[in-house]
Amino acid sequence: MTNSDIENLIDVFTNLPGIGKRSAARFTLHILKNRHTQIANFIDALKQVGDNVKECNICGNLDSTSPCHICQDPKRSTSLLCIIENVEDLWAIERSNAFKGKYHILGGVLSAVKGIAPDDLNLNTLLRRIEEHEVTEVILATNPTLDGQTTALFITNIIKDKVEKISQLAHGIPLGSELDYIDEATLDAAFSARRPF
Amino acid sequence: MTNSDIENLIDVFTNLPGIGKRSAARFTLHILKNRHTQIANFIDALKQVGDNVKECNICGNLDSTSPCHICQDPKRSTSLLCIIENVEDLWAIERSNAFKGKYHILGGVLSAVKGIAPDDLNLNTLLRRIEEHEVTEVILATNPTLDGQTTALFITNIIKDKVEKISQLAHGIPLGSELDYIDEATLDAAFSARRPF
Repeated sequence: MTNSDIENLIDVFTNLPGIGKRSAARFTLHILKNRHTQIANFIDALKQVGDNVKECNICGNLDSTSPCHICQDPKRSTSLLCIIENVEDLWAIERSNAFKGKYHILGGVLSAVKGIAPDDLNLNTLLRRIEEHEVTEVILATNPTLDGQTTALFITNIIKDKVEKISQLAHGIPLGSELDYIDEATLDAAFSARRPF
Repeated sequence: MTNSDIENLIDVFTNLPGIGKRSAARFTLHILKNRHTQIANFIDALKQVGDNVKECNICGNLDSTSPCHICQDPKRSTSLLCIIENVEDLWAIERSNAFKGKYHILGGVLSAVKGIAPDDLNLNTLLRRIEEHEVTEVILATNPTLDGQTTALFITNIIKDKVEKISQLAHGIPLGSELDYIDEATLDAAFSARRPF
């Protein structure tokens, strides 16, 4: 395997998250074997994404248009705003079909360790959105980590005088799981937040 | 996720072996987030492979040159020929540094189920190589599957009058494994082929 073209493609695949040398070599072999059909498609798909995808100037989503198709969607309520950390969180919520309002992507969370300060997050546009539109409820959906909760608290302090209602996602037992495998903090949260049956 | 450019890139990643929708989405997000640095590299690596890589007209290896760098290497013995199914087998053997002869890639194995006949394999050039060069030993390194062993037997019948020595890779307990986890057939083979300590 002293071939630099092939080695180079393996290296590129190794950059993908969770992909080691072995998987990258498998991908490369697959591409090599199907090179007459797949390489052009692959290049085309990458080119389209590179040329077209940009950050939505309202919510921070990645899409071919700015504002993105979610911000442009007249069927989605502007009065409900869900604050999330990253685009992957938006994709996860969209998969669940659980939310029909609009999103606001912070682009990260406050972190003393990583040196991420409020100015590094997409917060100015958040305040402008809340002031300009009639946002009645803000749902804080940052991750239930220390940094995520710190960020949620920080945002609550900024916006608490500007919106009627601030909520956060419920914590508890995930559906389809077994109690035996649930960590103590989650069980504790599930007991504290128990509801009438 | 109604964006067709992004969906399209996810679909392209889903074509890779072992990659489902979820991993493909993760790869796509990674590319999207690093689009200013990674897309050009990725396209370039694919383009180089697509433009340059071809099948070696001697052994069937994939390389930027034909004959490939292994066939051209004067330090590798032409009298030792290792017959393998696919390019991935060549890569695996090369990683082990266990073999310093030349390879011959069949491009598959005989298979009644998949309808692969001798004409579909890279056998003509094999006979020519054995006749033209002084091949003293042929090592059959097809996989220890039914089809692989059938193919090895078939090749033995064709070449047995033309080479001094035909060998196959030893079967036995893989190093670093535990007997408890070894299947019965392998244990049986290891007992039959036991050697003086």
